[in-house]
Amino acid sequence: MPPISNTTYNGSDRDRFNQVFTIIRQELLDEFAAQNVPEDAQNWYRRNIDYNVPGGKLNRGLSVVDSVQVIKGRALSDAEYLKAAVLGWSVEFLQAFFLVLDDVMDRSLTRRGQLCYYRVPEVGTISINDAVLIESSIYFLLKKHFRSEPYYVDLLELFHETTSKTGTGQLLDLLSAPEDSVDLSKISLEFEQIALYKTSYYSFYLPVALAMLLCEVPPTYESNSTGQQIEAYAVAQSILLPIGQYFQAQDDFLDFAGTPEQIGKVGTDIVDNKCSWCINTALAAASAEQRAILDASYGRRDPDAEARVKAVFEAVGLREKYGVYEEEVYARINTLIQAVPDDEGPYLKKKIFTDFLDKIYKRQK
Amino acid sequence: MPPISNTTYNGSDRDRFNQVFTIIRQELLDEFAAQNVPEDAQNWYRRNIDYNVPGGKLNRGLSVVDSVQVIKGRALSDAEYLKAAVLGWSVEFLQAFFLVLDDVMDRSLTRRGQLCYYRVPEVGTISINDAVLIESSIYFLLKKHFRSEPYYVDLLELFHETTSKTGTGQLLDLLSAPEDSVDLSKISLEFEQIALYKTSYYSFYLPVALAMLLCEVPPTYESNSTGQQIEAYAVAQSILLPIGQYFQAQDDFLDFAGTPEQIGKVGTDIVDNKCSWCINTALAAASAEQRAILDASYGRRDPDAEARVKAVFEAVGLREKYGVYEEEVYARINTLIQAVPDDEGPYLKKKIFTDFLDKIYKRQK
Repeated sequence: MPPISNTTYNGSDRDRFNQVFTIIRQELLDEFAAQNVPEDAQNWYRRNIDYNVPGGKLNRGLSVVDSVQVIKGRALSDAEYLKAAVLGWSVEFLQAFFLVLDDVMDRSLTRRGQLCYYRVPEVGTISINDAVLIESSIYFLLKKHFRSEPYYVDLLELFHETTSKTGTGQLLDLLSAPEDSVDLSKISLEFEQIALYKTSYYSFYLPVALAMLLCEVPPTYESNSTGQQIEAYAVAQSILLPIGQYFQAQDDFLDFAGTPEQIGKVGTDIVDNKCSWCINTALAAASAEQRAILDASYGRRDPDAEARVKAVFEAVGLREKYGVYEEEVYARINTLIQAVPDDEGPYLKKKIFTDFLDKIYKRQK
Repeated sequence: MPPISNTTYNGSDRDRFNQVFTIIRQELLDEFAAQNVPEDAQNWYRRNIDYNVPGGKLNRGLSVVDSVQVIKGRALSDAEYLKAAVLGWSVEFLQAFFLVLDDVMDRSLTRRGQLCYYRVPEVGTISINDAVLIESSIYFLLKKHFRSEPYYVDLLELFHETTSKTGTGQLLDLLSAPEDSVDLSKISLEFEQIALYKTSYYSFYLPVALAMLLCEVPPTYESNSTGQQIEAYAVAQSILLPIGQYFQAQDDFLDFAGTPEQIGKVGTDIVDNKCSWCINTALAAASAEQRAILDASYGRRDPDAEARVKAVFEAVGLREKYGVYEEEVYARINTLIQAVPDDEGPYLKKKIFTDFLDKIYKRQK
């Protein structure tokens, strides 16, 4: 689950958002302490939250705040900002829940420039239960801040459904890249679906849908500019899910083509046997001979095998194909966005979606 | 998390309850398949559910149905039974979620007479994500069967809060019994709290509270037999949480004193360094000399050390103390139950609670 990069957030956006973290962190610690649990458990819970939740790029969380501002078409009052930011942080908590578990399952080493949480010496598999407590924190925060809102139950269901979709995506990902058996015939065709479930829902649809609920965008409305009937949440999904798939394809391409300076890590998808855009695209274009090389060399923890795979990627013209793909998908998503009517009031606007797309288009890191 | 034994359920209760599992299992499989995931993922999900959810004693789930019948004071219609049983199964799904994760964290070997799920060869840590999907299934089922009920949001919050409490209990348990460092000073005093959070909420309070919500027992009502103001959910908690603690103490005692024929396993709490009723009670009664033996021998994977601990348990008179404790706690809980007014209508009745207590009192297995 890669960071959404290419952001336009500046320090003060981030600072204000982080101030809300300080507030909700204290709410969570107070609630935990109010259960009269021993001090060592309180300290443990605090470290769990602090280690896992706030250290990311925060793009998902900040995009909730941004989308609320776009829908309202104005700056937010302090009370409005707090609510938007609590929802933004809830997305960050959901991501933390999944990342902590992911790292255990993938036996990853580092995350966000520090040891993966489960690798902290005394933590180990207690991290699994800590992830459950992170997930529970979401519902505590939603209850505390939104219990009396008419859209409270919609928020709960949105988090439930996003959790379910993301878990389904993880399962597809885990089944498509078994550590001990490499079978490229299993990889093909599934890439788009894995990206859809594993990344698109929680990273792209969830933040916007939360903003829409907060602004009380109705499920269906008649556009005041075009007269069309708009199924608002379905329209948002129809644009944001493809953006998420594009984002994942880009991430996969950068894992192969980006320099460590660009992407901040050395790509490992090839040796990790990942079902990525690259291998899917290469398989579709490979000759029988190239296919044989891929079959023999993909997903092996051997630098020579990795080099042979990379050579096939180059030989089939993966860089060119990516350029073509990027232009095609960008145009296709833009067409979808242009069909969204810009309406006055608590309704969809094109800018919600162009903000996302422009952050991603041609990103190099 | 031990089974609640001593049940009075007969085959036909269980058969009818299991028939509802067949229905909701199909609903879950249909929903999963409707997302167009590949067949191997569908098969995986089906095995996940079948391996982990239905094989327990079902006492928690059945107690939802029983409590609904007691509150209504009559047999249920088929539609009422279905709803009660769906809630009962939701408790079983929640338990399965926690048990799958527990077994990974405790590195357990077997569960319910079969290999622990994570030990099935191709499963491993994928079980962690599978547990997330089991948890998600609960919210799918609640939405499908209760979306239009006035108490739907209360059901969701009850599951959220129970998950949070159980996770907190797990944390206390994990911190109190670290595998690699034995420190009995950490064990003392925490036993009752661990049992409260880890077992009482989800095993005792949750089933009854679900039944109360289904029957639309109001949060506060004036007793039509005594005129008292009754805080129904607080009263239920004040009785069921102590029953859960009693149940856990009993389970701990049987781990020490029960024969393998009685309890279906060989007790391992002493070598596992568990914060149990036994060690807590023994520590409070031990002489300096006995304390030194416990400090040196508790939590060691060594049969001689275990035998020395057992000898101290006998020397401090643990069996007698347990007998005294059981009579005392039974009398105390009975006093609480006798204070509950029996009201006509969708209100509390003593029998909800005596049914639980009688199932547990003096159980030998």
